[in-house]
Amino acid sequence: MNPNPRLHTFIAGKGGPWKITEIRIITGEGLPMAERLNYTNENLPALPEGAAWMLRGATSNERYVTQPEKEQLIAKQEGLDRPQADCAVLIPIRKNANWWALTQDERRKIFEEQSHHNQIGMDYLPAIARRLHHCRDLSEAEPFDFLTWFEFAEKDIAEFDRLLARLRATEEWKYIDREVEVRVTH
Amino acid sequence: MNPNPRLHTFIAGKGGPWKITEIRIITGEGLPMAERLNYTNENLPALPEGAAWMLRGATSNERYVTQPEKEQLIAKQEGLDRPQADCAVLIPIRKNANWWALTQDERRKIFEEQSHHNQIGMDYLPAIARRLHHCRDLSEAEPFDFLTWFEFAEKDIAEFDRLLARLRATEEWKYIDREVEVRVTH
Repeated sequence: MNPNPRLHTFIAGKGGPWKITEIRIITGEGLPMAERLNYTNENLPALPEGAAWMLRGATSNERYVTQPEKEQLIAKQEGLDRPQADCAVLIPIRKNANWWALTQDERRKIFEEQSHHNQIGMDYLPAIARRLHHCRDLSEAEPFDFLTWFEFAEKDIAEFDRLLARLRATEEWKYIDREVEVRVTH
Repeated sequence: MNPNPRLHTFIAGKGGPWKITEIRIITGEGLPMAERLNYTNENLPALPEGAAWMLRGATSNERYVTQPEKEQLIAKQEGLDRPQADCAVLIPIRKNANWWALTQDERRKIFEEQSHHNQIGMDYLPAIARRLHHCRDLSEAEPFDFLTWFEFAEKDIAEFDRLLARLRATEEWKYIDREVEVRVTH
């Protein structure tokens, strides 16, 4: 069986391009500290020798963005791997069973109409670039539902922290029962 | 790594509770004929010895149903494995890249407002029970995006064929570039 070409794996251990500066436990169980964060598109069959943990997710189709919102996003956003983006943060989150029992219209209402999730992210573009990975429908039982990877320049750290504070104050965040921040630098 | 508890695998080969009576190619490439269809919740690492093919998918949260539609569904539907349901059909489908590039509001519009997908399914409840499995975000590259499993009594075959004809006449079906019917009986 071939790997899903949209599958991405983050591995915390002794190698990789990113130095882990801090792991902050926001809600629920944390993740063990490690020296460096690596990244691969390969489908690893098991945790590599010497690694502390790995987390996997697949990029997928959009779940809540509308067509006008998507056009705004495309106009404002920049890609990952910009040379000035020397800071990154991996934020794995898990949503509770109440969230997953909601229908699409109820989730969209909480996500955007009440919580302005897309709008908050938009306010920090293009400085803070992001990529969302979905874990919930992978073949394996994963510890989180989503992995979001953020990249930005060190001068924008305070902006990034404001983005997080605004998201965590939303109605949507009441459904999050596990959240960890893995902060890294080049 | 533990399997996703919502993962289901259908295996066509020499064993299993269902006898394959016919494989109909509707759109695109078909699937090889086999004698019987088996079913497991285990996460098989590879195609079992002697099997012709296997297809996997995970049940997941609802993507298009609204809260009022969900209440109607719950009121009308019956579960799988009813003793009178001696016929079943597995229908794997794949949607094209144009579909997956649409935003949620555009997909919902085609799915329900234009194609009445939920409403068509509702018209055949409780006779025709179904379960939807998602393949697109599994860890492996899968040949289809969705597997739908239908169960019904033999006397309802003509009704089932009407359901399929109505779905295939919709705007939504223009986005389907591969579809196969695997018809089985007990």
